[in-house]
Amino acid sequence: MSSKYKSLKEECYEANMELNALGLVIYTFGNVSAVDRDNAVFAIKPSGVPYETLKPADIVIVDYDNNVVEGNLRPSSDTKTHGYLYKKWENIGGVAHTHAMYSVSWAQAQRDIPIFGTTHADHLTQDIPCAPPMADELIEGNYEHNTGIQILDCFKERNLDYNEVEMILIGNHGPFAWGKNAAKAVYNTKVLETVAQMAYLTLQINPQAPRLKDSLIKKHYERKHGKNAYYGQ
Amino acid sequence: MSSKYKSLKEECYEANMELNALGLVIYTFGNVSAVDRDNAVFAIKPSGVPYETLKPADIVIVDYDNNVVEGNLRPSSDTKTHGYLYKKWENIGGVAHTHAMYSVSWAQAQRDIPIFGTTHADHLTQDIPCAPPMADELIEGNYEHNTGIQILDCFKERNLDYNEVEMILIGNHGPFAWGKNAAKAVYNTKVLETVAQMAYLTLQINPQAPRLKDSLIKKHYERKHGKNAYYGQ
Amino acid sequence: MSSKYKSLKEECYEANMELNALGLVIYTFGNVSAVDRDNAVFAIKPSGVPYETLKPADIVIVDYDNNVVEGNLRPSSDTKTHGYLYKKWENIGGVAHTHAMYSVSWAQAQRDIPIFGTTHADHLTQDIPCAPPMADELIEGNYEHNTGIQILDCFKERNLDYNEVEMILIGNHGPFAWGKNAAKAVYNTKVLETVAQMAYLTLQINPQAPRLKDSLIKKHYERKHGKNAYYGQ
Amino acid sequence: MSSKYKSLKEECYEANMELNALGLVIYTFGNVSAVDRDNAVFAIKPSGVPYETLKPADIVIVDYDNNVVEGNLRPSSDTKTHGYLYKKWENIGGVAHTHAMYSVSWAQAQRDIPIFGTTHADHLTQDIPCAPPMADELIEGNYEHNTGIQILDCFKERNLDYNEVEMILIGNHGPFAWGKNAAKAVYNTKVLETVAQMAYLTLQINPQAPRLKDSLIKKHYERKHGKNAYYGQ
Repeated sequence: MSSKYKSLKEECYEANMELNALGLVIYTFGNVSAVDRDNAVFAIKPSGVPYETLKPADIVIVDYDNNVVEGNLRPSSDTKTHGYLYKKWENIGGVAHTHAMYSVSWAQAQRDIPIFGTTHADHLTQDIPCAPPMADELIEGNYEHNTGIQILDCFKERNLDYNEVEMILIGNHGPFAWGKNAAKAVYNTKVLETVAQMAYLTLQINPQAPRLKDSLIKKHYERKHGKNAYYGQ
Repeated sequence: MSSKYKSLKEECYEANMELNALGLVIYTFGNVSAVDRDNAVFAIKPSGVPYETLKPADIVIVDYDNNVVEGNLRPSSDTKTHGYLYKKWENIGGVAHTHAMYSVSWAQAQRDIPIFGTTHADHLTQDIPCAPPMADELIEGNYEHNTGIQILDCFKERNLDYNEVEMILIGNHGPFAWGKNAAKAVYNTKVLETVAQMAYLTLQINPQAPRLKDSLIKKHYERKHGKNAYYGQ
Repeated sequence: MSSKYKSLKEECYEANMELNALGLVIYTFGNVSAVDRDNAVFAIKPSGVPYETLKPADIVIVDYDNNVVEGNLRPSSDTKTHGYLYKKWENIGGVAHTHAMYSVSWAQAQRDIPIFGTTHADHLTQDIPCAPPMADELIEGNYEHNTGIQILDCFKERNLDYNEVEMILIGNHGPFAWGKNAAKAVYNTKVLETVAQMAYLTLQINPQAPRLKDSLIKKHYERKHGKNAYYGQ
Repeated sequence: MSSKYKSLKEECYEANMELNALGLVIYTFGNVSAVDRDNAVFAIKPSGVPYETLKPADIVIVDYDNNVVEGNLRPSSDTKTHGYLYKKWENIGGVAHTHAMYSVSWAQAQRDIPIFGTTHADHLTQDIPCAPPMADELIEGNYEHNTGIQILDCFKERNLDYNEVEMILIGNHGPFAWGKNAAKAVYNTKVLETVAQMAYLTLQINPQAPRLKDSLIKKHYERKHGKNAYYGQ
């Protein structure tokens, strides 16, 4: 395999396999992509190929308008959503989509995930947004492209910054997450799934559980992400 | 092992082992069969044999009227249900039955599984039906044969097509699933179990969660199964 | 290790290790015993020894009055309960006690497990009994011996046969199960845990879920345990 | 690695890896420390280092005032909480903190975990306390140090003894546990997580489940920890 995109394909392949190793997907129910900003292309999982048989060479290279640049397989059916996000959000380096259990269940319940604790605040200061299902004409039209529009509309309406909130639920569908690279998008997918399960259990134990108070939200987010952050090396 | 049914037995064996690998069975609580339409026989797991010790040569070959054609062991106690389905539904190639946790719980709750999201709609456009428990005289009679009748009666009453809806819950008992071959029947069993868990969690998070709207049901089913399907390779 | 109880110890050891392999215990939270009726002794796990380091030679041999017959370690703190059951119920060959998750949760809820489905009826025709917590004077007295009395009292009061109902919950404590040998006691412990989880989920999905009707209870129990049983080989 | 703290680092490393092996952490969401009372220092996990790549040489040695004594990496962001506990509670040898699923969910629900059964009473005779979230000025100040103060305040207010109750939930955050050494702190973390799940399930099955009665609390605690204890070797 001699390709100028060899390392991009490998990054994408590793991130997809990590999704599987973390128990976030069964069968082909998920996909991760990784972008190459210099060449304005991204690498994405081929559609419907099981993780057990996936190889780095199977990864497909497409441009932001979803034209296949390199690869023999058809890219993920969700490719247009990935492409739209790369085009509009210039700081992101990777995108992940799954049907992970607890994230999907909140999406099907059409509810934002309330910020209940420091596990959540270590990663973002907002409730995790659940975008409403799209209007019928958008679903019947260019569906996956419009899913991207729906994500940006939700962020605009709620005045959220994609650099700070790196995840969303699409109502009745499931989670999308992103980050500086594909590995971070997968990490955010796992964090979202974990926080989703914690919030579900919290409400079962105490349906009146309060949101985390502002001082704790700020403290935990700042110690990990603020300018005086002291978490990590 | 020299048998004209060698490959059929192997298909059946592999599908049964996959049931175990996917965490859908404990002990002997499940069985898969695979049909040979040309010879009008099917291969099925022997009754009460643990997956740990099961071998391809243990698989039993029976005809649609449940007569053993080849094999030294007694076939699954549910054989008559499999046989009835093969006889009546000529397009199916495999059948699977389990006592998987979430599927059984919905069956015990005697409730259809509502279509709450796209994970469900990727596979079928209907609620997953839960057939009511049989009348006492049918239970006391030819029980496993009558279980087959009960499945077909439920599909007829609700006007369902077995080519599109490849799974059912039997009230108070558990799931049956089928497909073009044994592997697909196992796949559908796993999908059913996953969707059953998602629907359970969805109702815990939001007891008033709405069914998926028609445009999304149609979009997700069509992109995977419609004539212009663009999912997969 | 030259001991007349060598094979008895190995049976006991294997059953204890199976408890661990099935995910029914953490640390030292469980114990299994196996009886030798000819010699009127039983083999039991030593107290507080982790499964990771347990060896067949560690197994302790005691008589029905709990005197150590062979072994260098102190037997399980629950030994007197096992001994009482062997003394009173002459047909049983093995006893298992755990703190498995769902079984304990029903015991802590002080509720019988209703017979909701065929998975349950394949093994017994009754709700799984939950004995009430003991009177204070019995707890403060010969506690583990009295736990055995409590089990028999519960069976007597409800007119249950220990040959047919091979499991019980002790209110606020956890499950005991038994059978023709130690492996069967472990099997019954796993079945109880599975049925306990299914019943829990069933009530979450439908708090008004009905008990399984009599004809289905009878059919499933008889096809596996009746005189015309046709399940298994 | 030639260090006078070599064995201390190894104890700390092993305990951190055990946290991971027991499924109590994902990524870097947890930390364990081990104390050396003679030298008045403790060993703790470095901040933000994944368990997959952690080595004994990465472990950081700090004194009770959180000055780094040995090590090239920054110690856990929760180091000041560990240090405060070692300074104030002279009998403890190890401390563990995680974001384990069920423990966090009770902490987010801001509820003590009621003593519902013998699994709980085998380890402590009290409800597991959930300290309230701290006052805003304490959060904005020396947060991790103040978390230690909060733990001691909660114990003082409720008249609890840290030698008997070796675990606590911090409201909206998660569990801390301790013990005679680091391994025992990890053990207590696992026990807390198990008891938290059991209590959650118990309340789902029976919202009116009663607390364990005093005679049973006393019996189970005394047989394992009393002066006439007969559990273990």
